[in-house]
Amino acid sequence: MTRAAYYLGDRAFAVRDADPVAPGPGEVRLDVAYTGICGTDLHILHGAMDHRVQVPAVIGHEMSGRIVALGAGVEGHAVGDPVTVMPLDWCGECPACRAGHTHICHRLNFVGIDSTGAMQRSWTVPARLLVALPPGLTLRHAALIEPTAVAVHDVRRSRLTRGERAVIIGAGPVGLLIAKVAQAAGAEVTVLEIDPHRRRVALGLGLAAIDPAGVDAVEHVRDWTGDAGADVVFEVSGSAAGVRAATDLLAVRGRLVIVAIHPAPREVDLHRFFWRELEMIGVRVYRREDYEEAARLVLEGLVPADELISRIVPLDDVMQAFHALEAGGDVKVLLDCGGGA
Amino acid sequence: MTRAAYYLGDRAFAVRDADPVAPGPGEVRLDVAYTGICGTDLHILHGAMDHRVQVPAVIGHEMSGRIVALGAGVEGHAVGDPVTVMPLDWCGECPACRAGHTHICHRLNFVGIDSTGAMQRSWTVPARLLVALPPGLTLRHAALIEPTAVAVHDVRRSRLTRGERAVIIGAGPVGLLIAKVAQAAGAEVTVLEIDPHRRRVALGLGLAAIDPAGVDAVEHVRDWTGDAGADVVFEVSGSAAGVRAATDLLAVRGRLVIVAIHPAPREVDLHRFFWRELEMIGVRVYRREDYEEAARLVLEGLVPADELISRIVPLDDVMQAFHALEAGGDVKVLLDCGGGA
Repeated sequence: MTRAAYYLGDRAFAVRDADPVAPGPGEVRLDVAYTGICGTDLHILHGAMDHRVQVPAVIGHEMSGRIVALGAGVEGHAVGDPVTVMPLDWCGECPACRAGHTHICHRLNFVGIDSTGAMQRSWTVPARLLVALPPGLTLRHAALIEPTAVAVHDVRRSRLTRGERAVIIGAGPVGLLIAKVAQAAGAEVTVLEIDPHRRRVALGLGLAAIDPAGVDAVEHVRDWTGDAGADVVFEVSGSAAGVRAATDLLAVRGRLVIVAIHPAPREVDLHRFFWRELEMIGVRVYRREDYEEAARLVLEGLVPADELISRIVPLDDVMQAFHALEAGGDVKVLLDCGGGA
Repeated sequence: MTRAAYYLGDRAFAVRDADPVAPGPGEVRLDVAYTGICGTDLHILHGAMDHRVQVPAVIGHEMSGRIVALGAGVEGHAVGDPVTVMPLDWCGECPACRAGHTHICHRLNFVGIDSTGAMQRSWTVPARLLVALPPGLTLRHAALIEPTAVAVHDVRRSRLTRGERAVIIGAGPVGLLIAKVAQAAGAEVTVLEIDPHRRRVALGLGLAAIDPAGVDAVEHVRDWTGDAGADVVFEVSGSAAGVRAATDLLAVRGRLVIVAIHPAPREVDLHRFFWRELEMIGVRVYRREDYEEAARLVLEGLVPADELISRIVPLDDVMQAFHALEAGGDVKVLLDCGGGA
C-alpha cells in the first residue's frame, strides 16, 4: 500500500491509503521524496481551477524521488536513479509543437493539474517526463528544481546579460527565485515589495529590497541607473499597480517580463512603449534546458535551497501545509512524501 | 529670395517669401524638391503638438532635394548631389545615446517638429543629417524614403522572416508601407481595414485585405494559418479594438508591434501574453540602416512609389494639400517645393 493526498473540492483534502500503479510500457514508478506546494496548488485548493481538476484529484508538480520500477521498453534509466519530473506532456502535432514550442502545446497536459500529480508516496509517470538529477544534489533540494526552472525560463526570455540592472516587482517565492537567478546571471537586482516580512526575507537572501509604498521607485531606479532606467523589469505582483510601475521604470529598449498571471486585462501605457521602444515578453513554464540549468543553480547553491525551504510537513498533514502557505509567513513549503530513504 | 510655408497655429499656414539661410560650418543648403505630408504634420495643423512647435514654424520632415551650397568643413558631399535628410538630431551624451540607441535620445531634436523643417524651397541643415540617394532614384520617389524607413524599422524590429504570416491592422499610409515592406521581406500579409476605400487601395497594391467589421478576423486568420495564428501583427489603427484584435490573432510566440501612437493607456490581455508567450514591441522612427534599406526598396519598385503618391501640390497651395489629406481619399500627398529641376 501507499499513501496519497486527494483534493476533494470545497477546500478539502483527504489522505488515504492507495494501491501503487504498476508502470505500463514506457512508464516508470517513482518513490516520491518531496513535493513542493506551488501558488497554483493553492489556487486549486481555493476552487479557482475546478474546471481543469477532476476530483478526487492527486495534484502536485514540484517533486523529487527515485525510480523503483521500470515499465517495458524504458531505456536510459535504472531502478534507484534519483530524478525529478518535468510535468509537461505535449501532443507533438499542433501548430505550436510543430514550430518547436512544445512547452506551449495547444493541448498541453500539465501533469499535476490536468492529470495525476505528485502529492503521493508512489507515482507512476511516462519516462519521457523524467529529468535525471546531477550527482551530489539532495532530494530535498531537488524539489526546488521545478520552481527554479520557471525563474530560469523567465530570465532567459528576458535576455538579461551580465552587468544589466533588473527590477523584480513582488517578492513571493517566484519573485525571489527570479531575483537569485538574475543575480547568478551577473545582473544587479532590486526587489520592490510592499509587505515588510517579504522584504526582510529578500534582504536575508542578499537582495536589495525597497518598499514602493514608502519610496518613489521611479526616482530610486533613476538614481541607481544613472538616469537610464532598468534594463529589465519582472512583473511578479499580478497587480495593476505593478504593470503601471513596470513601464515607468524601464530604460530605452527595456524589457518587461509578465511573470504573474493577470486574469483581467490591464491598462498598459502603450505611448511609453513607443517613446522608449520597450518590449513586453510573455512567459510560460519552461523547457528541458531550463530544468537542467535550474538543477545546476540549486546544486551550486546559487539558488539557496536551505534558505528558501521554510517548512517541511509530512504528507498526512497536507492541510497544515496549505494553511501555513495561506498565512503568508513561508517561502517554500515541502511535503515529505516518505520516499526519500 | 525663396519661399516657405509657415504654420501659424489655429489651423493656418501662410506661404511667404523668405531669405535663404547661408550654411554655417558643418551645414549644407539644399534646394528642396518634394516634401511629403505626414500624419504628424496633420496633428500639428490640428494644434495637437503646439507644445513642441514654435510658431511661426516651417514644418515637414519627408523630403528630397539637391545640395546647392556647402558650409565650411563639410566633407563627403558635393554641390549637385541628390539627397534626403534623416530628421533626427541627438545629443550623444544621454544614457540612450551612450547605449547606442541614438534614435531614441532622451533629448532628441526631431527636425521639422522641434526645429525648422522642409516645407520650403531652400533649407539649411547640418550635413550629418544627410543621406545620399542611390543612382537612378528620382527626387519624386525619394520623398517616400522617410515614411518607408519607418516601415522598414518596424518590420526589422518585428524579426519577420520569409514565409511568416503577418497581419496589418489599419491601411493608412504607414500600414500600407509596412505591408509592402513585409511582402518584400518574403512574408505573406493580410490587411484588416474597416474603410472600404482604403481596402480598395490595399487590394490595388496587391495586398489581401479584409473588413474586420464584416468578417470574423480570428476565424479568417486561423483558417489562413492552419490553426496557428499570425506570426506578427502590426497595430497601426491606434484603436482599442485594434489592440484587442491583435492579441486574439497571434500564434504561440507571436510578436505584436505597436506602430500607432496610443495617447491613452489601453487594456491589454496579459493572460494571453502568458498563455501563448506573446511579445509586444514598441517602435519609434528609424536608424540610418533603415533609411538605406528604404531607398533600395523604393528604387527597386518593391515599394511602389507611383501608386502611393496620390497627389502633388505646389508649395503655395499647402492648405489645399492638407485639406486633401483630411478628406481621406489620398495615400501620400507631396508638396512640390520647386527645387526639383
